[in-house]
Amino acid sequence: MLNKTIQLWENIDHVTLHTYIHDHSLEFQANQKRPAIIICPGGGYLGTSDREAEPVALRFAALGYHTFVLRYTTYYKEWVKDTNNPPAPNEEAGYPQPLYDLAKAILTVREHAPKWLVDTDKIAVCGFSAGGHLAASMGVHWDGQLLNDRFTVNQELLRPNAVILGYPLADYQLMKEKVFSEGDDFAKHFWNIAIKAFFKTSEPTNEQLYEASPVHFVSSQTPPTFIWHTADDALVYAENALNFATALAKNKVPYELHVFESGVHGLSLCDETTAENENHLNPECSVWVDLANHWLKNHFD
Amino acid sequence: MLNKTIQLWENIDHVTLHTYIHDHSLEFQANQKRPAIIICPGGGYLGTSDREAEPVALRFAALGYHTFVLRYTTYYKEWVKDTNNPPAPNEEAGYPQPLYDLAKAILTVREHAPKWLVDTDKIAVCGFSAGGHLAASMGVHWDGQLLNDRFTVNQELLRPNAVILGYPLADYQLMKEKVFSEGDDFAKHFWNIAIKAFFKTSEPTNEQLYEASPVHFVSSQTPPTFIWHTADDALVYAENALNFATALAKNKVPYELHVFESGVHGLSLCDETTAENENHLNPECSVWVDLANHWLKNHFD
Repeated sequence: MLNKTIQLWENIDHVTLHTYIHDHSLEFQANQKRPAIIICPGGGYLGTSDREAEPVALRFAALGYHTFVLRYTTYYKEWVKDTNNPPAPNEEAGYPQPLYDLAKAILTVREHAPKWLVDTDKIAVCGFSAGGHLAASMGVHWDGQLLNDRFTVNQELLRPNAVILGYPLADYQLMKEKVFSEGDDFAKHFWNIAIKAFFKTSEPTNEQLYEASPVHFVSSQTPPTFIWHTADDALVYAENALNFATALAKNKVPYELHVFESGVHGLSLCDETTAENENHLNPECSVWVDLANHWLKNHFD
Repeated sequence: MLNKTIQLWENIDHVTLHTYIHDHSLEFQANQKRPAIIICPGGGYLGTSDREAEPVALRFAALGYHTFVLRYTTYYKEWVKDTNNPPAPNEEAGYPQPLYDLAKAILTVREHAPKWLVDTDKIAVCGFSAGGHLAASMGVHWDGQLLNDRFTVNQELLRPNAVILGYPLADYQLMKEKVFSEGDDFAKHFWNIAIKAFFKTSEPTNEQLYEASPVHFVSSQTPPTFIWHTADDALVYAENALNFATALAKNKVPYELHVFESGVHGLSLCDETTAENENHLNPECSVWVDLANHWLKNHFD
């Protein structure tokens, strides 16, 4: 396995793509190109969570994919456990820089495809929570002005071939409404700091919330999308997934949606490989990995 | 196993409840009451499909449930293969008679509970397609005027303890809009005859469509609901499931939703036990049975 950390931008040392690339062997599948998955961990755009990074990369690597973990631009350069006592924020943070990071990651995988034996028709992005927002944003904006202005490449190169979203944030307006009508103290606290991390202001306008919500930009050009969520997620509400799926249906984009009844936010792989505490152990939800793998294989075969 | 056909109304011979009741044994689980599932096959309210009847009852019976197949009032008294050459319609057909039938079935199971060893806190209704419409209608109307006027019982007795919906019709207005904007000839033909079977008119008013759509009557009193659908169902659109789940979420009703990407309408158990043709064999979707069983066990334990 090629485990390597690639710095994506010349002058920014904290935006990296870490590779989990299968060794090539002449004994089996000689010269066979593999599908790839670029994983975007969550963390409210405050940081990128290790719980949604290497273990996820290894799980899908074990299923035959080349995998990559993207550490995109976040408000803090390191993972901050206690958000009441944070370090100095990252000056470069804020949308749309994370989207540029993911676009650059996709281009990087495509550039190295011949060497790494990546099948360039089979590059998926997979994001969780805020990383799900990022992956969904890539799904809807790959052919838009924002990225077109920033990257002077054939825009098809920016298109993910499939998108996998775990408990994604997709609708900022829905979030704002629900956090303030029914969120607990933690949800409100988290919303406030995550909003600042993303919008660089504590009071984004309705227009800003709209523009930052991928749910409004789904089109027939959005790639096939797999979504999973838990219905009682108290931090990023399942209506994000329902609304995004509804937008995909409306635009006739192939999609699959699994909303499990019960599970805390941030389940990642739902088992002992990613559990920080007992709430993260959830056998019912853990089937999402198999469901996503079958779904992806169906699309990529 | 007690296999018995019970006629639910004195003067109507075609509305029946067929039982699949476990034999009681002193060797194991002595005197233990079991959960029950009342199954409502689909068929566009034209008939009730055998494909969504006995095989489903047996599958869940094998998982430890007492099961029941309800043959509710439909437009034809027998299953009609060729709807272009139908027999004379059933004079008693039309909504809300099927809802009365299901209410009567629930009461019948409750009445016999001591003898059959049914746990009366664990009675689920499970419907497919039009049967899903019926089961969903029971979920939202059990405490409403319609059934209250018809049955002089404690209305709690009418409440299903859980609802399972397979590719349900939940929103007639959505259906009408989509059938005429994008339905194929078969969808339009089927819509026309199913509408007549249900509304007793070919041109129901918008108010009639609204009143007959369970999606509008979800409340905090609606029982926990499990829904599955396929995103590319060309006969009953997956937005029925998305909209119903959104209504459940809004009313904070526990729910679980699985929208698989691909599968024809009417998959039933998705395997050889219910397949009329190859399109009905769908390993991806067949996991719904396990998902529903786990979900139900979580609720009933």
